[in-house]
Amino acid sequence: MGGVIFGMAIALALAPAIATEPPPIPADQLLPEWKIVANTFWVLLTGFLVFFMNAGFAMLETGFCRYKNAVNMLSKNLIVFALSTLAYWATGFAIMFGNGNEVMGYSGFFLLGPDNSPLTDIAYEGTFESLGWAAVPLKAKFFFQLAFAGTAATIVSGAVAERVRFLAFLIFSLLLVGFSYGVTGHWVWGNGWLAQFGFYDFAGSTLVHSVGGWAGLVGAVMLGPRLEKYSDGRITAIPGHNMALSTLGCLILWLGWFGFNPGSLMAADPDAIVHVLLTTNMSAAAAALAATLVSWLYFGKPDLTMIINGVLAGLVAVTAACAYVSLAGAVVIGAIAGVIVVFSVVLLERFRVDDPVGAISVHLVCGIWGTLAVGLFSVGPDVYPWYGAANGPLAGLLLGGSVDQLLTQLLGVLSVGGFTAAFSTVVWLALRFTVGIRVTPTEEYEGLDLSEHSMEAYSGFLKE
Amino acid sequence: MGGVIFGMAIALALAPAIATEPPPIPADQLLPEWKIVANTFWVLLTGFLVFFMNAGFAMLETGFCRYKNAVNMLSKNLIVFALSTLAYWATGFAIMFGNGNEVMGYSGFFLLGPDNSPLTDIAYEGTFESLGWAAVPLKAKFFFQLAFAGTAATIVSGAVAERVRFLAFLIFSLLLVGFSYGVTGHWVWGNGWLAQFGFYDFAGSTLVHSVGGWAGLVGAVMLGPRLEKYSDGRITAIPGHNMALSTLGCLILWLGWFGFNPGSLMAADPDAIVHVLLTTNMSAAAAALAATLVSWLYFGKPDLTMIINGVLAGLVAVTAACAYVSLAGAVVIGAIAGVIVVFSVVLLERFRVDDPVGAISVHLVCGIWGTLAVGLFSVGPDVYPWYGAANGPLAGLLLGGSVDQLLTQLLGVLSVGGFTAAFSTVVWLALRFTVGIRVTPTEEYEGLDLSEHSMEAYSGFLKE
Amino acid sequence: MGGVIFGMAIALALAPAIATEPPPIPADQLLPEWKIVANTFWVLLTGFLVFFMNAGFAMLETGFCRYKNAVNMLSKNLIVFALSTLAYWATGFAIMFGNGNEVMGYSGFFLLGPDNSPLTDIAYEGTFESLGWAAVPLKAKFFFQLAFAGTAATIVSGAVAERVRFLAFLIFSLLLVGFSYGVTGHWVWGNGWLAQFGFYDFAGSTLVHSVGGWAGLVGAVMLGPRLEKYSDGRITAIPGHNMALSTLGCLILWLGWFGFNPGSLMAADPDAIVHVLLTTNMSAAAAALAATLVSWLYFGKPDLTMIINGVLAGLVAVTAACAYVSLAGAVVIGAIAGVIVVFSVVLLERFRVDDPVGAISVHLVCGIWGTLAVGLFSVGPDVYPWYGAANGPLAGLLLGGSVDQLLTQLLGVLSVGGFTAAFSTVVWLALRFTVGIRVTPTEEYEGLDLSEHSMEAYSGFLKE
Repeated sequence: MGGVIFGMAIALALAPAIATEPPPIPADQLLPEWKIVANTFWVLLTGFLVFFMNAGFAMLETGFCRYKNAVNMLSKNLIVFALSTLAYWATGFAIMFGNGNEVMGYSGFFLLGPDNSPLTDIAYEGTFESLGWAAVPLKAKFFFQLAFAGTAATIVSGAVAERVRFLAFLIFSLLLVGFSYGVTGHWVWGNGWLAQFGFYDFAGSTLVHSVGGWAGLVGAVMLGPRLEKYSDGRITAIPGHNMALSTLGCLILWLGWFGFNPGSLMAADPDAIVHVLLTTNMSAAAAALAATLVSWLYFGKPDLTMIINGVLAGLVAVTAACAYVSLAGAVVIGAIAGVIVVFSVVLLERFRVDDPVGAISVHLVCGIWGTLAVGLFSVGPDVYPWYGAANGPLAGLLLGGSVDQLLTQLLGVLSVGGFTAAFSTVVWLALRFTVGIRVTPTEEYEGLDLSEHSMEAYSGFLKE
Repeated sequence: MGGVIFGMAIALALAPAIATEPPPIPADQLLPEWKIVANTFWVLLTGFLVFFMNAGFAMLETGFCRYKNAVNMLSKNLIVFALSTLAYWATGFAIMFGNGNEVMGYSGFFLLGPDNSPLTDIAYEGTFESLGWAAVPLKAKFFFQLAFAGTAATIVSGAVAERVRFLAFLIFSLLLVGFSYGVTGHWVWGNGWLAQFGFYDFAGSTLVHSVGGWAGLVGAVMLGPRLEKYSDGRITAIPGHNMALSTLGCLILWLGWFGFNPGSLMAADPDAIVHVLLTTNMSAAAAALAATLVSWLYFGKPDLTMIINGVLAGLVAVTAACAYVSLAGAVVIGAIAGVIVVFSVVLLERFRVDDPVGAISVHLVCGIWGTLAVGLFSVGPDVYPWYGAANGPLAGLLLGGSVDQLLTQLLGVLSVGGFTAAFSTVVWLALRFTVGIRVTPTEEYEGLDLSEHSMEAYSGFLKE
Repeated sequence: MGGVIFGMAIALALAPAIATEPPPIPADQLLPEWKIVANTFWVLLTGFLVFFMNAGFAMLETGFCRYKNAVNMLSKNLIVFALSTLAYWATGFAIMFGNGNEVMGYSGFFLLGPDNSPLTDIAYEGTFESLGWAAVPLKAKFFFQLAFAGTAATIVSGAVAERVRFLAFLIFSLLLVGFSYGVTGHWVWGNGWLAQFGFYDFAGSTLVHSVGGWAGLVGAVMLGPRLEKYSDGRITAIPGHNMALSTLGCLILWLGWFGFNPGSLMAADPDAIVHVLLTTNMSAAAAALAATLVSWLYFGKPDLTMIINGVLAGLVAVTAACAYVSLAGAVVIGAIAGVIVVFSVVLLERFRVDDPVGAISVHLVCGIWGTLAVGLFSVGPDVYPWYGAANGPLAGLLLGGSVDQLLTQLLGVLSVGGFTAAFSTVVWLALRFTVGIRVTPTEEYEGLDLSEHSMEAYSGFLKE
């Protein structure tokens, strides 16, 4: 079926699209050429950094798993961006940003349809009105958003690691990126119903990270824990096989977030960019230290996996609020995220949800925390030049605001979470009864590298 | 002799070059300052990404080899950029882009000679007329082209891996970058005879990748296969020792290609940049999926090495055509490359050409495919603003064009390939009869790390 | 106490800072908006590259150590940027660049205080006058300088590797970044007394690299060598456990230096940027080849650790002079650095200073060499447009200058070195008598991963 869709696409699009004649534009809507160039550079540079997060996730997740599943983790993380590219091009981007109704977009499949970007606002005419504010070419918008979409899918792979069937994961990713991620994204960034409720998620604590986290949580629950995890009625720690890879992955992700958050401005606005950059980094730093400290006190030793997950927790948490809070606000958001992530990992283990890499604690739990933090720590409109009443949240509860924004944020968390969880349940169930979602115990025991790929990752080394 | 050359260079150049007084310039030739800045930023950003491909190749190739040759692979990949820097500075850049005749340049050694960049076109006066179109400082041009030159040399190291003498490889690389790569590059990008025939290779499917591939093929044939490869009269698979490194390398290379292809515009033209970026990424994605599917059907399992080589095949293939084809055209080019690379690997094994990392299939075979694809899928001039009749190919055969462009592309493939193969044969032969090109069987058996470097890569681990 | 400081900071800064009304500005001081944008982009792009050097150092140092200390090395390298972020925000940046006297700054803690950046020069009014020349927002200045500060701390971790207590290292780093690095930095870049003597260190051979090197040297001496290093009265080579990681680290650092040096211009000046970029790369290339050649001749084999340290030696050495020397001058500086680093490693071993990763030879010794090289190879003012008498050194001794600049450089080396060494001695001593600086012999023997972190880096692999 995918073949048919792509076949049609190719028939449609092998010849270049005919450019439509743009209408005359009010002179005051024309940006100087240098600004278009600068905006585009910023979107591309940050898009490159977000793309590189694929390498970060691949290293992070692979290092946290056992050597016998390394090829499988690497394969999933490598191919998922290829899948995402085609799925998001075909349908995901259209559903998310294409003109449609308040629930989903339904135009602009395969990037087809008129579009006069980089013209903006009232001068913009075309298929992707919800992105009409961004003064960059359409293909730049697509590339940046594609890099985001790939991230959501990658998060899932960690939560279902070491027992999911490769084919089931591929199909799930295809559907997540090609449909569900686009729908919930449309609600907010596509100018859908949640946006009109005043819900704000600057760079995707909910729309990207929690979405990946919910999909992973449902997958992890439905798959059940790995064989050895609760074998003797007690919790067995299953250490990862390569902490160097995981640390490298963490640092690549940290770098990637300098694209993820400041890039979401999609504009060459120096003051806004550097503020978002610093809130992002402050939160990561505070979270890393908090997680280190908590794990040191709680476990007796500073645990590297907790330092790593602390960094990521801070990054995920500040993603929703990074443009709306002060530097010190970011420090507080991060510090709390660093505490949360440690106890979330512990609690999920107790609840017998087996998440080999901590993806649910990092991306779902801290994604929720960060989304709510918008309602707590936002400084309020008209303090920063880039954040007015029309494009940012009300002042947060802890900074003199009412509880309204917090409640709106909660609504967003629940609705996006509810939809993604429901979608994921349906898809994982459908996969269970068709291609199967879990490898056999024998295959799991010998490792997915042999059973799913007939190869091993570290040939020549002696292992236990 | 190298010492003498560098000694002379230093004597010449230790004092700074005297800037020549530029002639008066027609006012309409003066670009606004912001454009020079923007162009330079683009060239440097993309140059950084291409430079980083050295890390990508190092990880990719090392992971695909055995642990006992890891130090050797790493050493080759690390030092080759240092060698390339000095060789390309001394002679390679001058031969490629310096003023000369239609066959080679012969001015501008050590970047010396007048040059009034970033002035362009008729306002440009200087030593490197073939790069007079690029509105960036000369040193930016050099840096970007140097990063390309380093790539070509790196490709060779994969094909001759696990048996070549370190010294022979170093000398070969020095001569390739310092001479041969520059000559064939001059034919096209240096405005030489092939360019005047209407041959187009946007970012180097032929000029970079095939050149590296031909040099590697000749080396691999002349060295013969590794000892164990065909030992009992049958083909023995020799698995690599670290798939995590190889996957990381692949993702770094994918990122690097976002510099390689869009950077080749050497100009801050947003529409062109984002188009080239997307065709590049589309081809990679389609190729990855095609190679996965084909390897799944053909070998029974989705083979990670094939996913990796699929990504790279798509990237190499679209490199020649990326500015001239539609997104869907790029998908088709990539999908075909993904199929080709799998069967090319299989066929080369049957023909007893031992290419440990698949470099010949990826860079030579898919480089040829991509160069020919220009003659098949180009949309024709004046469809895209950046691609006119004076700076792009005729419409491709499958898009209503004649067979002319395809034949011109074939001429380019054969002439560049013929020259590089001949050059490589002479040099590898000369090296065989002087320093020797292959280690002894004993050395090969114990590994090049011990025999060539007296060290091991993974001290403390137990190995087979 | 740190908690109290951060608590105060948060109380102060959770609400956003009140922007002070800027005074009217002379029209000729206003830069066009595109220039602010371009400057900011350059500072951020290069800042990202410098940040990524954390990954480079993490991989380099971890690979050069034994597998049993890998988690510890990774933890140190990961958390040090988090620590640096908070320490440099709280105090380090204020001490380094805040208004104060000739010895240190004492305003601008937590980035608080008025600042009208990106206005520059006489139009600048604010807390950080020494950075008033840079036409970018204050937070961009901070981010770039933070990335530098993190580097200095990271260098230390290599020299004290495999025996230092984790807690002692954390406290030392906090104090180095929060105080000492800022003080010596203020002397030069903060427009302090050394700057007024005419000392020049363009991007930090002394201020960053030697500072890290001195701190590491004192630490290494005070800790004493690792148990096995001189056990039987002779020098035992202790090979690192993963040369692939180290090579990757080296290439990441090489890339990072393209940010480190050209970024230090903090301005979108194409000619200056590309010149600095090329001197940086030339020096690295020459040093890599020189170190390879020397190690080949001296040890009989081309040693990969020496190729790696050669690259880094060339990069460190040219850092002080990169804007002031010609390309050929950079080649000479690098080639000499490549020779120096090999013999420095050998000599330090003989002197029984145990530096597991070569950090002292690379960063301290070559940092000194590079700082002095300013006095030898600088071309003199008014040859390059970006380098006049007011912002660059006198012509070097080997290019027709007097010995004055060389003596000033020596003064800088000695004063910065003296202060840092004294500070380090006090702090390491204080730590020795409080938390302790060295693990017990038993802990060292079983490895710091188990003793300090209760985990291992490579679970599942069999080791010696």
